[in-house]
Amino acid sequence: MPEPLNIAAAHQLDQRDPLATFRQRFVIDDPDLIYLDGNSLGRLPKATREIMHDTLENGWGNRLIQSWNEGWIDLPDTLGARIAQLVGAQPDEIIVAGATSINLFKLASAALRARPERSKIVSDVFNFPSDLYILQGLIDLLGNKHALHLIPSGDGIHIDRREAENAIDESTALVTLSHVAFKSAFMYDMAQVTQYAHDAGALVLWDLSHAAGAVPVDLNSSNADLAVGCTYKYLNGGPGSPAFLYVRKDIQEKLMQPMWGWLGADNPFDFDLDYRPAHGLSRFKIGTPPILSMAAIHPGVELLLEAGMDQLREKSLRQTEYLVTLFDAWLAPLGFSLGSPRDAGQRGSHVSLQHPEAFRITRALIESPSPAVRVIPDFRTPDNIRFGVTPLYTSYMDIFRAMDRLREITENKIYQHYSAERQKVT
Amino acid sequence: MPEPLNIAAAHQLDQRDPLATFRQRFVIDDPDLIYLDGNSLGRLPKATREIMHDTLENGWGNRLIQSWNEGWIDLPDTLGARIAQLVGAQPDEIIVAGATSINLFKLASAALRARPERSKIVSDVFNFPSDLYILQGLIDLLGNKHALHLIPSGDGIHIDRREAENAIDESTALVTLSHVAFKSAFMYDMAQVTQYAHDAGALVLWDLSHAAGAVPVDLNSSNADLAVGCTYKYLNGGPGSPAFLYVRKDIQEKLMQPMWGWLGADNPFDFDLDYRPAHGLSRFKIGTPPILSMAAIHPGVELLLEAGMDQLREKSLRQTEYLVTLFDAWLAPLGFSLGSPRDAGQRGSHVSLQHPEAFRITRALIESPSPAVRVIPDFRTPDNIRFGVTPLYTSYMDIFRAMDRLREITENKIYQHYSAERQKVT
Repeated sequence: MPEPLNIAAAHQLDQRDPLATFRQRFVIDDPDLIYLDGNSLGRLPKATREIMHDTLENGWGNRLIQSWNEGWIDLPDTLGARIAQLVGAQPDEIIVAGATSINLFKLASAALRARPERSKIVSDVFNFPSDLYILQGLIDLLGNKHALHLIPSGDGIHIDRREAENAIDESTALVTLSHVAFKSAFMYDMAQVTQYAHDAGALVLWDLSHAAGAVPVDLNSSNADLAVGCTYKYLNGGPGSPAFLYVRKDIQEKLMQPMWGWLGADNPFDFDLDYRPAHGLSRFKIGTPPILSMAAIHPGVELLLEAGMDQLREKSLRQTEYLVTLFDAWLAPLGFSLGSPRDAGQRGSHVSLQHPEAFRITRALIESPSPAVRVIPDFRTPDNIRFGVTPLYTSYMDIFRAMDRLREITENKIYQHYSAERQKVT
Repeated sequence: MPEPLNIAAAHQLDQRDPLATFRQRFVIDDPDLIYLDGNSLGRLPKATREIMHDTLENGWGNRLIQSWNEGWIDLPDTLGARIAQLVGAQPDEIIVAGATSINLFKLASAALRARPERSKIVSDVFNFPSDLYILQGLIDLLGNKHALHLIPSGDGIHIDRREAENAIDESTALVTLSHVAFKSAFMYDMAQVTQYAHDAGALVLWDLSHAAGAVPVDLNSSNADLAVGCTYKYLNGGPGSPAFLYVRKDIQEKLMQPMWGWLGADNPFDFDLDYRPAHGLSRFKIGTPPILSMAAIHPGVELLLEAGMDQLREKSLRQTEYLVTLFDAWLAPLGFSLGSPRDAGQRGSHVSLQHPEAFRITRALIESPSPAVRVIPDFRTPDNIRFGVTPLYTSYMDIFRAMDRLREITENKIYQHYSAERQKVT
C-alpha cells in the first residue's frame, strides 16, 4: 500500500526505519538545514572528532616522528583493508593514496602498458570529466598513439548496454567507466561490462566515486581488474580525503605504474639510488600520505560496515523511490523532469531533477532566509539538481521537507529573487 | 671568545637567544624528550589546534559543502602565497598540492616536454632517492629516450661545483637537485648552478624539502625555473602534509604537465568533456585537496615568517656551529666523524654525525629508559645520525643535552644493549 504524501507518513517511515539511529552518530547541529549533498561531501561522524584529537595531540604533538612506526605508515593498507570489505575485495587489494585523478592516472598508465599493441580506450559521456581529462593527458603524454572512444547516451540518462558492448573491440586496451554516473546516477551492471571487456581482451577500470558506500559493489565477483574511488562522499572521510585504488591480486605484480615514488619502492628506508618496485600492491604507493586527512577516513567506513551495505541499499532504494514518488506528484506538474533512471535497479543513491531554472532554484533552496527550511543539494550544469540520499543519516522527513520546499520555491517562483551568477562549487 | 662547553654556558646561550620565546608557541609536553628531528617531522604549533578544531567543527561539521566556497577551494593558492614569501617567490608562483614526488613528476614531465630535442637529465648522488626514482619512472614511461646522469661526490659530503658544471651540457634538458642534501646537509649555491643550467639551455628544478624554512632561499633572484618542496619538515605543517610547487611566472603558460585533473582545468565546474588547461599556475593542480591536512599547514608557515628567515638562519648557524664544537671536543675522540660540511656556508640546518654503530646508538638515544634523557634524531643508512636544528623551537640546551647523552651512550657502550634489527622509519 503506497504511503500518503503527507508529513505524518514521512514521520512514520522514519519511525519504522531500522537504520534510523545511525543519524545520531553524525554531527547534525542545525535541525532546519536539510543536507542532501552527502554524495559530494559526507557529514562529519562524531567518532571522527576523537580520532582527530588523538592524531593531533598524541600522534603528532606527543609521539612525533615515532608515530610513523606506530600505525601511520600502514594507514594506506589498514584503511584499504576496511574499504575492501565494503566493495567486495580482499584486504590486500586496496590501498588509500592520493586523489582519485592521480590514482586513475597510475592505473590507466599501467593498463596501457600491459596492452602495448592496443590503441583504443573506451569510456562514456557520463564519466566524471576529470577522468576523461586524465585519459586525454595520458594519451598526449604517450605521443597520441591512443584514441579515446566515448560511449554515447541516447537520452542523457541511460547508457544502452548494446552501445557499451559494441564500443569494446579487439583494439581496446582499457575500458574505464564510472560505475554510477555523477550526474544522472545511471549504474552499470559491473559484471556484465567487465565480461564484455574481458571477452575482447581488454582491462577494465571502474571509478567507484559515486558507488562505494552508496550501492553494493562486488569487485571480486565481477572479476574487475582495476578500480579507483573517492572517500569524501558516501564514505564520510572528510573534505578532500585521500582516494583509494584497487588492483586485483593476481595482476598486481604484472602491472607497473609510472610514478615511482619512494613508498612504492621495495626498500624505501634503504635509500638505494635505483628503484625496485615493492611486491604486491605497495608498488602503487608514491609519497608520504597526509595523515590528518587519512586518519579521518576510518570512522565513516566503520559506520557503513556496521550498518551493512545490503541494508543501506534497501533503505537507499526506498528513499530514492519515495523521492521519485514526490517528484511525480508535486514536481513533474511544475516543469521538472526526472534526470535519473526511473528503474531503481539502474540507479545509484542520488536523484537528479531537471528544470530550466535549476541553478536559481538551487540557490533559493540553499540560501532561503529563516524561518524557511534550508536545503542543500547541488547543481550540475546545465539543468540538474542532484539530491544525494545517504541512508546513514538521511531521513524520510529530510526528503519530504526538501521536496516540499522545492515545490514551494518553484510554484511561487521564489527563485526569481536569486541571481544566476555562478559560484565556484555548488 | 668561545663558549665553555658546560651546561651553564648552554643556559646562557638560550637566555641571550632573541628567538627563544618562539619555543613556547609549540606543543612541548615532555621536558626530558630532546627532539632533534624537526627536519623529518616538525613539531605541532599550538595555533594549529585551533585551526584544526575550526576546520573540523565549523568547516566540515557545520558549513559542510559550503566551505568549499568559503576558502577551501583557494587553499592551494592562499597557502602557496605565504610559502612564496619564505622562499623568494611571487604569490602566484607557488601552490600547495599533492606530495613532493607527485609534484616532481609533474614538473619534470613538463620540463622534458619543453626541451624535446634534449635527452639528458642531470641530478646527483645526494638527491633524495624518491626524486631519482620519479625520474627513472618518467624515463621508462617516455620510452627510455632520456638518460639520467648523477653528479658524483668525492667525499660523500660535498659536491664539487666543477663536477656540477661539467655534468651540464648542450644535451641537458633538465637539472634537478636537492638544494640541501637530505643526508649530509650539503647546500648548493642555487644561483650559480641555475646559471650553469641556463648557460647550457637547460631548465632547473630545485627540491627544497630540506631547505624551505631551514635556510634562506631566493627562487626569484636565483632565476630558478621550477621547484618543489615539503611542508612537514621545517614548515611544521603536520605529518605528510601536502607539498608545494613553484613555477616561475613567465614560463607558467609555456609549460604543460601531464596529469590533467579537473582542478587544473580552465573550467572545472562547467564539466566539459574536453580538457583545456587553466591559465597560470592552476594548470598544475590535479584533484581535490585534502583539507584537514592542508588547513594544518598555515600556522607553521606564519611562525617562520614572523621570526624571519634571516634571523632563523643566524640562529641555525650558531646552533649547528655549537653542535660541531661539541662534536669536536667530545665525539670525534670516540670514533665519530662529521658527515656534514664543516663550512657553515655550505651546510643546511641539520648535522650528520657518522659512526660504525650509528644505528644502535640512535636506538639507544631514542629508547633510553627514565631517568636518562631521551633524544630523537634520525638514522640514515649506512652510518649517519642526523640532528635537525629547527631554530623556532630548538634550544642550545637541547643540543648540549643531546651531545652529552650521545657521548655517554658511546663512551659507556650503552648501545650494545640495543638490537641492530631495523625498524620501518627511524
